[in-house]
Amino acid sequence: LNGEVISIGHELLMGEIVDTNSSFFAQRLAETGVTVRWFSSVGDDLSHICEAIERALSRSDVIVTSGGLGPTSDDLTREAVARVLHEEMRVDAGLLAWLEGVFRQRGIAMPSTNIKQATLIPSATSVPNPTGTAPGWWVTSRGRHIILTPGPPREITRMWEETIGPRLAQITGTGVVYTRTLKTYGMTEGGIDEVLADLFGKENPYLGIYARPDGIHLRIIAKAPTRPEAARLAEPVEREIAARLGTAIWGTDAETPASRVIALLSAQGRTLAMADSATGGNTAALLAATEGHGKVFKGALVTGPESGSLGAVLAAASAAARVVQALDGEHQALALADAAREGLGADVGLSVTRTPDGGVYFGAVSDKGSHSGGETRRWPRDIAMNRAAVMALIGLAGAVSRGEV
Amino acid sequence: LNGEVISIGHELLMGEIVDTNSSFFAQRLAETGVTVRWFSSVGDDLSHICEAIERALSRSDVIVTSGGLGPTSDDLTREAVARVLHEEMRVDAGLLAWLEGVFRQRGIAMPSTNIKQATLIPSATSVPNPTGTAPGWWVTSRGRHIILTPGPPREITRMWEETIGPRLAQITGTGVVYTRTLKTYGMTEGGIDEVLADLFGKENPYLGIYARPDGIHLRIIAKAPTRPEAARLAEPVEREIAARLGTAIWGTDAETPASRVIALLSAQGRTLAMADSATGGNTAALLAATEGHGKVFKGALVTGPESGSLGAVLAAASAAARVVQALDGEHQALALADAAREGLGADVGLSVTRTPDGGVYFGAVSDKGSHSGGETRRWPRDIAMNRAAVMALIGLAGAVSRGEV
Repeated sequence: LNGEVISIGHELLMGEIVDTNSSFFAQRLAETGVTVRWFSSVGDDLSHICEAIERALSRSDVIVTSGGLGPTSDDLTREAVARVLHEEMRVDAGLLAWLEGVFRQRGIAMPSTNIKQATLIPSATSVPNPTGTAPGWWVTSRGRHIILTPGPPREITRMWEETIGPRLAQITGTGVVYTRTLKTYGMTEGGIDEVLADLFGKENPYLGIYARPDGIHLRIIAKAPTRPEAARLAEPVEREIAARLGTAIWGTDAETPASRVIALLSAQGRTLAMADSATGGNTAALLAATEGHGKVFKGALVTGPESGSLGAVLAAASAAARVVQALDGEHQALALADAAREGLGADVGLSVTRTPDGGVYFGAVSDKGSHSGGETRRWPRDIAMNRAAVMALIGLAGAVSRGEV
Repeated sequence: LNGEVISIGHELLMGEIVDTNSSFFAQRLAETGVTVRWFSSVGDDLSHICEAIERALSRSDVIVTSGGLGPTSDDLTREAVARVLHEEMRVDAGLLAWLEGVFRQRGIAMPSTNIKQATLIPSATSVPNPTGTAPGWWVTSRGRHIILTPGPPREITRMWEETIGPRLAQITGTGVVYTRTLKTYGMTEGGIDEVLADLFGKENPYLGIYARPDGIHLRIIAKAPTRPEAARLAEPVEREIAARLGTAIWGTDAETPASRVIALLSAQGRTLAMADSATGGNTAALLAATEGHGKVFKGALVTGPESGSLGAVLAAASAAARVVQALDGEHQALALADAAREGLGADVGLSVTRTPDGGVYFGAVSDKGSHSGGETRRWPRDIAMNRAAVMALIGLAGAVSRGEV
């Protein structure tokens, strides 16, 4: 099936916002067996929107639009679809009751302009929008599907997951799409390609490989009539990958290096302190951005990554740090981690530090033991701090999950 | 003049990358007097690219494409334009010599596939690409302009600034576009609108107002035959805004809160240390991401923003911090800033801290004096740390520039 994504809004064509919805839809449509061949964007102009929809109807089986479902006179996507299909928009009693309820909950009277958000045309059914006031439309006409969604990415994600994705998978006969992502660190794309060569190139389950800032991701996509069946299809592939890649896999699905650290330490009721002379506070910022950090993350001692050794800073915080200056690489990292743990009174200490020759090392220390590692390759300047933060967090997560720290 | 932007590449339609080029072109085209009415994206498919270019030629005066100028058989944008215009691609001796030189400098032999990057058609001239191997094309045909650029955003930016923008401004009669951005903090959009009401709504110089994470930005866009003339047009507007908004303006053009702090302290040869119990290391990360931080930014003491007062951490680093726990709001912030300065041995101390009632305060301290401030409103959770970091950095920059700290 051919797919097409149309994004609608003046602000796109002024360059005021970057369109991220189209790539979201493209990914999701591909999973559902729809090959997207065209994106287009038009402004809030009725004839331009009509033209774009007419063209899409002439060449695409599934058309997804975003934007133009608001309450103002600039929001014209419904009007355009009604005009192209020669149908009339009518207020739907059920939608109106729902919309009035939304406003009641917010404690404000519904402005009369919002009534058009409660309309449908005869060939459309409504797509619930649990986080906004603009329900979507699902139009079936001439054997084509036109799916209208609002502009805000957050609303679209929920609508796709709860309604559009499942319904579309049924229509395309894809059934349910089950995806599972395994995240690795420390192996190259080529190295993984070699180890898993026989698993690639299959249709169902499909195995994709993607290079990301936190390592190489492997994505298993299985399609079957029901979710348990799809999961059963994916499961042996996951098991096989896990057996071959072992500890190179540090997480799955939505896990991040920081969420993995927080989850592991949180489950053990332990706290974490950091010494950072390589990432300029970025590692702490990743931890602080993670749900649940409050009970785990006690703090960090950060030096400007170009301002010299952390030893000088830590000397003020901990006598243990005085010896740090004399050490190199991993040993320095371990001494720093220990000093941070002691200085900030945490169960686990983590450090990330840079040596004068450009190597970046991390150290993790607790009462249980210690673990350290490093990278001597030079990352490009603009991503070096993020990469070092990721390395340290994944290194710590591995050590904690193995019980070494 | 009507404008249209076409982005080309399979990876866009798979949702693997988000298209940021289209919004870049849309902004730049608008400044040059071209109104963009359509974006479209197609894959690496010759007939689809031809179709998109033909449609664009039927409705737009200026067409900009990105992508598809690489050396592989998948890169088909030149081929599509040649086909649509019934012209033949020929190797250009000058381009070939340049391209061979690029490879010679890189110390590798030019692969024969790259030769097509040295081709032109009769109605095209070349657009130099100083940072890549794919020169652009500028095609003039049927009174339309088709401008072909490669995919990488970094290459496009240089090509626009050095060649496309100036040439297009001459063609459209816009002359030179001069822009000047004034960045404010602490005023609302409505408040600024009131104070500057009479300056808005003019054509040339045009004054735009934009809400950004680091405050409200005002952008003056002046057009004139030459750059000095355009600058002269903008200058009285800038002077008027500066007079009315005074110290609410913290920076201009590409300045960021962190670059402002680094530039001011660097010029004075002073160093900076931080205590952070509100932004989880984000303030340090902003400083560490800024050119020139090495000589200025010594380090930061960071607590997990939900793990309680920074006083406990600082107690280990500085005796001065022992009193901190007893203080509130701005006074606590000042004590923390002083402790960070002392503990890390810097000239200037900056702190950002949160009180239990949700207020966020910053303090800045040096031998010269001190300055503090705060916000009691609650920012949404996902942006709170960034907003607090911006507040502290802008607060410090103001105090340093006024000689208070």
